[in-house]
Amino acid sequence: MVSAMPHQTAPALSRLEQQIAFIVEIDKLKLVLRQTRLMDGSRRENDAEHCWHVALMAVVLAEHAGAHIDVPRVLKMLLIHDLVEIDAGDTFLYAAVDPAAIAARETRAAERIFGLLPPDQADELRVLWEEFEARDTAEAKFARALDRLEPLLQNHRNGGGTWVEHRITVEQVLAKKHLVADGSAALWAFAVALIDDSLSRGYLRTAAREPSR
Amino acid sequence: MVSAMPHQTAPALSRLEQQIAFIVEIDKLKLVLRQTRLMDGSRRENDAEHCWHVALMAVVLAEHAGAHIDVPRVLKMLLIHDLVEIDAGDTFLYAAVDPAAIAARETRAAERIFGLLPPDQADELRVLWEEFEARDTAEAKFARALDRLEPLLQNHRNGGGTWVEHRITVEQVLAKKHLVADGSAALWAFAVALIDDSLSRGYLRTAAREPSR
Repeated sequence: MVSAMPHQTAPALSRLEQQIAFIVEIDKLKLVLRQTRLMDGSRRENDAEHCWHVALMAVVLAEHAGAHIDVPRVLKMLLIHDLVEIDAGDTFLYAAVDPAAIAARETRAAERIFGLLPPDQADELRVLWEEFEARDTAEAKFARALDRLEPLLQNHRNGGGTWVEHRITVEQVLAKKHLVADGSAALWAFAVALIDDSLSRGYLRTAAREPSR
Repeated sequence: MVSAMPHQTAPALSRLEQQIAFIVEIDKLKLVLRQTRLMDGSRRENDAEHCWHVALMAVVLAEHAGAHIDVPRVLKMLLIHDLVEIDAGDTFLYAAVDPAAIAARETRAAERIFGLLPPDQADELRVLWEEFEARDTAEAKFARALDRLEPLLQNHRNGGGTWVEHRITVEQVLAKKHLVADGSAALWAFAVALIDDSLSRGYLRTAAREPSR
């Protein structure tokens, strides 16, 4: 971080230098493209703007959480939840992947990226990310629900988006999106209505409708 | 919001419908381009990813605030601070503009955009936005400091960016960035070091160095 912190001889600045190194590094999240397109369909969304959107969704939708939640904790979790994708890349929700390989890649990414921060902050954000991944707490369940809901809203608005592109079935969507129910019954009811509507609009197909061969 | 909430006859859903209308509308913030380019210089930043970045900066840099701050309030403020630009557009910091005309445009935008939400939430976010604009509270001062610091980091990293493009002087930058000092003495010291370094790299010019005519 020499170039960003030119007068770095004063030891008192070294904590700030580490923080700035992290802040500069995470700019790269804006370059990680997701599969889903924006609601107007004009281009693919990037991880940074996705993180902003789900964080603001948490502010607005907190009252629908299925349990009492610490909203500031959810906000922090959503702001950092995709940082590992700077190194590990985005994985399409319906891709056939080896979860262990992805987990290993993301764990190495977490080491490196959170490790840019002073140790206390590195630990704090690492714990938040692990909590999000483990989905054991009310905060993580709600955060994960929003993370699944946003692309569903996008596909519904932009004419089917990645569902049409990858010939996704309603059964696949229901299976993948069902964890919204763990975070919020109200949001799950809403998600099911959107999925039903997407089926009736032809954005989604049913497995049963596939011709048998 | 008929298309986003197909089964909307149940009155119990109408609060959620309003919230979803807001969440769908704010996707447009991803299409509002700022003047500043990303740290790698590859493209201009958009407002949504900027809001994500400054919110996460608040998480990491909160300890440097000049006064005790309510961090969750700062986070919410930063997440919503640019929403009015969906209607009013982004204004370049060094542009010669009529502040009253911009303020009027942004006030109308706030009416419309926050007005999509249920009234209690519309009021809450509107108050937060006005607090950010007024810059009277410790939270607003810190949030505004981060909002000024992020593009400074970007211009310093991407070879001078908008400073070079618009032939900005160090005096202009110091005048516009000085409000960082109101939010944090430590971050202002850091900003001054970056500005000094930018001058020595030729990213900024001094007014005195301009040839007299």
